[in-house]
Amino acid sequence: MSNQLIVKMVLDAWYSKIKDADKVLDMLSDEQLMHEISPGRNRGIYLLGHLTAVHDRLVPLLDLGERLYPDLDEPFLTQPDKTVANLPSASILRQEWKNTNEILAHHFNSMEPDDFFRKHNAVSVEAFEKEPHRNRLNVIISRTNHLASHVGQLILI
Amino acid sequence: MSNQLIVKMVLDAWYSKIKDADKVLDMLSDEQLMHEISPGRNRGIYLLGHLTAVHDRLVPLLDLGERLYPDLDEPFLTQPDKTVANLPSASILRQEWKNTNEILAHHFNSMEPDDFFRKHNAVSVEAFEKEPHRNRLNVIISRTNHLASHVGQLILI
Repeated sequence: MSNQLIVKMVLDAWYSKIKDADKVLDMLSDEQLMHEISPGRNRGIYLLGHLTAVHDRLVPLLDLGERLYPDLDEPFLTQPDKTVANLPSASILRQEWKNTNEILAHHFNSMEPDDFFRKHNAVSVEAFEKEPHRNRLNVIISRTNHLASHVGQLILI
Repeated sequence: MSNQLIVKMVLDAWYSKIKDADKVLDMLSDEQLMHEISPGRNRGIYLLGHLTAVHDRLVPLLDLGERLYPDLDEPFLTQPDKTVANLPSASILRQEWKNTNEILAHHFNSMEPDDFFRKHNAVSVEAFEKEPHRNRLNVIISRTNHLASHVGQLILI
């Protein structure tokens, strides 16, 4: 099986979930994003910031350059929801979510199929020699599942 | 990149999500499975039956033989939750869920890497010639995301 075809399979799944997420986010008003997905659980705005932070972190993790929004980590990754007083507004987060995914798409489009099978930045050269499945494409598979999981929660709002 | 490595990447993600699902299901009592994931939404038992039906359907879809539990389709796929009077008990569904995933694992273990890149049963020979990404491995990628989405909901109970 060609690497090109495999990359297509994984990226198709990635873009399909991004599309699902965008569809749900477009349906939710900024006001609705302040609702919890279930009583006592995370709010929509937290999941939006969380997904944006995780996707933004993919840029350095996949060795594609500098990330744009490191300030999202503290309120949306390090701290749980409803513990940080001043969150960015929903409209700013929506824009950052969009930008982040567009930047990733731009990188993915300009990469050769083989580039996806190179190591990512959270694995050492030595470990990668023994475990070549710890490549960039594997990170995308994992983040697609992460996205699917949170989209399944966002639709509950 | 070898087909073997790619199959490993996709199956690792699959088994990892099955493990996540099992962990959540083990934490939930039969009584808790009767709770909704969010007010007015699906109950845990519906998601358990739904996931079992979808995974059971993988057996014929991937051309691995006959499925075991076609009776799950009506209450857990065709009909929405809370419209079917007599559902199987949680303990029966838990057993069927376990069986189904064990049968799939047994098949996956006995398949050669190249087998995963053969066509599945929902695509014609003609269409598959033009669209070789519509192979069995692609279905597993898609079902892993499906599972991730519902595990993200089950943990809300």
